[in-house]
Amino acid sequence: MMKKCRVLYDFSGETDNGELTIYENEVLQIIRQDVGEGWWEAENPSGQRGLVPEAYVEMVEENQGSKPITTQQSTVSQDDEWDDDEWDERASQSSYDAQQQEVSSQDSGLNGNNYGLSAPNRQFKQRNSEASARSGTVKKNFASRFSVFAKTGGEAYLLGGGPKKGASPDGTIRIIEAEDGPRWEETVGKYTCEIKNPKKESKLKGIKSFIAYQVTPSNTGIRVSRRYKHFDWLYERLAEKFTLVIVPPLPDKQVTGRYEEAFIEKRMDQLQRWMNRMTAHPVIGPSDVMIHFTSCTDEKLWKQGKRKAEKDEFLGAAFYQNIEPPANNLDVATIERQHDTFTRFTKSFDSSVAVIQQVIHDYSKKHLGPFKREYQKIGNSFTELATTFNLDNRPNPEGKDDPPQESVQLTEALNFTGKTYEEIGELFYQQPKYDLHPFEDFLKEYGGMMSCFPDMIHFHKHTVQTVKECQKQREEQKMDFEEAEAVKKRADVISYAMMAEVNHFHRERVEDFKWIMQVYLKEQIKFYKSLTIKLEEALQKYDELDR
Amino acid sequence: MMKKCRVLYDFSGETDNGELTIYENEVLQIIRQDVGEGWWEAENPSGQRGLVPEAYVEMVEENQGSKPITTQQSTVSQDDEWDDDEWDERASQSSYDAQQQEVSSQDSGLNGNNYGLSAPNRQFKQRNSEASARSGTVKKNFASRFSVFAKTGGEAYLLGGGPKKGASPDGTIRIIEAEDGPRWEETVGKYTCEIKNPKKESKLKGIKSFIAYQVTPSNTGIRVSRRYKHFDWLYERLAEKFTLVIVPPLPDKQVTGRYEEAFIEKRMDQLQRWMNRMTAHPVIGPSDVMIHFTSCTDEKLWKQGKRKAEKDEFLGAAFYQNIEPPANNLDVATIERQHDTFTRFTKSFDSSVAVIQQVIHDYSKKHLGPFKREYQKIGNSFTELATTFNLDNRPNPEGKDDPPQESVQLTEALNFTGKTYEEIGELFYQQPKYDLHPFEDFLKEYGGMMSCFPDMIHFHKHTVQTVKECQKQREEQKMDFEEAEAVKKRADVISYAMMAEVNHFHRERVEDFKWIMQVYLKEQIKFYKSLTIKLEEALQKYDELDR
Repeated sequence: MMKKCRVLYDFSGETDNGELTIYENEVLQIIRQDVGEGWWEAENPSGQRGLVPEAYVEMVEENQGSKPITTQQSTVSQDDEWDDDEWDERASQSSYDAQQQEVSSQDSGLNGNNYGLSAPNRQFKQRNSEASARSGTVKKNFASRFSVFAKTGGEAYLLGGGPKKGASPDGTIRIIEAEDGPRWEETVGKYTCEIKNPKKESKLKGIKSFIAYQVTPSNTGIRVSRRYKHFDWLYERLAEKFTLVIVPPLPDKQVTGRYEEAFIEKRMDQLQRWMNRMTAHPVIGPSDVMIHFTSCTDEKLWKQGKRKAEKDEFLGAAFYQNIEPPANNLDVATIERQHDTFTRFTKSFDSSVAVIQQVIHDYSKKHLGPFKREYQKIGNSFTELATTFNLDNRPNPEGKDDPPQESVQLTEALNFTGKTYEEIGELFYQQPKYDLHPFEDFLKEYGGMMSCFPDMIHFHKHTVQTVKECQKQREEQKMDFEEAEAVKKRADVISYAMMAEVNHFHRERVEDFKWIMQVYLKEQIKFYKSLTIKLEEALQKYDELDR
Repeated sequence: MMKKCRVLYDFSGETDNGELTIYENEVLQIIRQDVGEGWWEAENPSGQRGLVPEAYVEMVEENQGSKPITTQQSTVSQDDEWDDDEWDERASQSSYDAQQQEVSSQDSGLNGNNYGLSAPNRQFKQRNSEASARSGTVKKNFASRFSVFAKTGGEAYLLGGGPKKGASPDGTIRIIEAEDGPRWEETVGKYTCEIKNPKKESKLKGIKSFIAYQVTPSNTGIRVSRRYKHFDWLYERLAEKFTLVIVPPLPDKQVTGRYEEAFIEKRMDQLQRWMNRMTAHPVIGPSDVMIHFTSCTDEKLWKQGKRKAEKDEFLGAAFYQNIEPPANNLDVATIERQHDTFTRFTKSFDSSVAVIQQVIHDYSKKHLGPFKREYQKIGNSFTELATTFNLDNRPNPEGKDDPPQESVQLTEALNFTGKTYEEIGELFYQQPKYDLHPFEDFLKEYGGMMSCFPDMIHFHKHTVQTVKECQKQREEQKMDFEEAEAVKKRADVISYAMMAEVNHFHRERVEDFKWIMQVYLKEQIKFYKSLTIKLEEALQKYDELDR
């Protein structure tokens, strides 16, 4: 039976070289896999045949191959297999609806750019509490019932105050005034987590198998074992709890291909980076659910903590009840201007990142194909010349056939040069692993963070609008002074939180981009140095001929 | 009126980028010359429009533009202008017919590859001397009357002996036995020539203008002034005199374009290389005509020497009368085997050189377009990101707008990186000048030398055939022993000369390819080092952020 593969990335083939142009998600019939040098021969749905780069496609099962499967759909397949264990059955009775969300989620991100992530939109449970009823004091609703502002209870919180009774498990979170503006107060006991040793484990007599990662937090030093779905659960908790905090989605859930080990390693690295960002965040790191996730070793306690987290009522807008902002009141006009500046920044950032991603993607692709071929062509032409020079049989009366020493040495030097350029071609092929791919992964991670911006901006915009509406109503005597002041005070909490988070983001951004540029440039330098060394070795062969 | 340009090289345009695919010798209408970055907008004869690289086309005069002009035709135009002076009028009365040859010459070279040269085929005057009549003793002619063998008098010489009376102006040329086979004996008084200071001179009150090169030979140290047409005259003398010696054609006669100065410099360099090869050759260097060309300063003596050279009868096969070979007779079977080996070598060399030329040409083209654009795209994407990061206005209650120092520094570092990659793009654009173009020029020169092989091989092959035929006739008693032995003795002179020349060629080849590979690799190393330095400067900007 004909094998099939699915196209992972667009590839613009050079027809002259017998290549086929292919498009993401197309399913191709594989004609030959032994073409060599990373190329397969394949046939596209229109019946055209040609060479395609092996790295741009992945094998599919016969029964899957017949219909094109979108990336969205494919993201669930692996973890699905592992999902029906005891832990998940209980979970399905709780308010935990991540599973469902994930399937129904659409591409997220700004401007329709989803950064290659299956980043689910945050979907908040409707917090239809008594506060909602109390908002009847305001004659009209300022935001759509279905907006994130409404859904997370933002309107209810602003207009009605703290609807939740009792203490939040996270205690009070303070925002302090720093030189560069408001900051989240750093708590003592910062920690990091090391994720290591992914192990394939199984249950139900081997029918179900899954990967368990060993997570060791620096504060306890005690290792805990966590599966991807546990991380996913954690993500859901954080995302629904911290409305104005950037909680980037987890790395892609992907169908594991032939490179299962490499895939697991890569996912682990991505989880590590995600975890680093979460533990380092001054609000998320010390949160109750994070501590539970990183430190709980006992199964019974785990389940208790899990249920507690799922029942946490101080999420969405209710979270702001526990924030203690700086004492000063904020000026609405200043807030609005800064809000607009940040909005402009996110839009510009969005498009710059999209441009770099495209450039890097194209450039990376060229390393795999055209660049490698270019240098190998050069190498081959030198090797061919060396083959010709092997025919140097000097005519002489005795008919002796050996060419003189210097001719033999030149031929050897040319052969060496040919080999050198072949190797340079291979270095080009390998190079993206060291510079472009890490850069791409980094930008993907940022893409995930950026997918949180629209909700943040939306939430804060409606906060400001609500404040302005209340002031207007007060001026029109439709709202009394104290009530309007109370709304403003609560709005200030949200604005301070927004400021603190934006400032936190910018500080991280500067650090992160500095880091990735250093990584990238160092690898570029290393690369060009390695070419120089190779060429110097080749040159030496000719210099030796002088001796 | 619409300006036009002629396409110098094929260019495969990327339609997606608005480029136009163009073919050598096409005449395009120029739409815009101010597109920038080395691109013009043009329309091809089919009416398609697009961008074309400026470096791939040259402007043509309106009256020329209407018909496509082939390279062959264009080679005569400049020097034509200079040709009707007194010197040439006299020349036309002599046997000198170079002018006519040049116009009628067809593309030369093996396998139809003319290496981009206007290398005229050697066209020899029919030496229809008394020897031809004496060949009546042989019942049939072994070679076509129109072959180079017949035309240069090879057959007449072999069968009839030395037809020319008196002493050759060049004296006796000896072939000696060396370790690696027969060699031309090196004469004392080797010299080199320096060609310098091309000067535009004019006559006929400025109507006729030409370039005069100052030629200083190392043996006399006295400067002589020579024009291109003098070199051309010299080439014709050498080519018709030395049948089995490689006399490469002169560099292209080209229409001078806008870059007249650069063109003159380049032609001078090429003439220098040609002259180096000629003066270094043990037979050509000391020849009477070369000495005359390099040393004659007096106009009257010049004309005398010119007429003497044109009347030299010891050319073509007659030249072999003056050669004194080693004493040993040669074995025909050995000679034939070596002949075949060399023939195989030339064919293989021909195709290897064609491959390298193509590879280098394509690779060089990529530097001008795609590579440059690739790095500039990367540069632009960093610059764009820096522009975004300029929008980093940290929110704070006072509404201060200055981003903190580390953010400003990151933005500057990104801008610097953007500029660095722009510059790297420019370095790619410039690089072929230093490595690929010299390599191309070198291969062109070798192409010229290789265009001499077919005649050499043809001449020698017929020599061997004639010897074999005579032996057969002697066995059949149709030719007496002495006559056959005399033919064999004369054929040995030719075979020894062929051996000496092939050995000379191989020695030069080893030296030359060693030299060009060193030039090329050194420039490649320099290039990659310069990229490394640029990138290190960029990296430093980020490293400084730590301080």
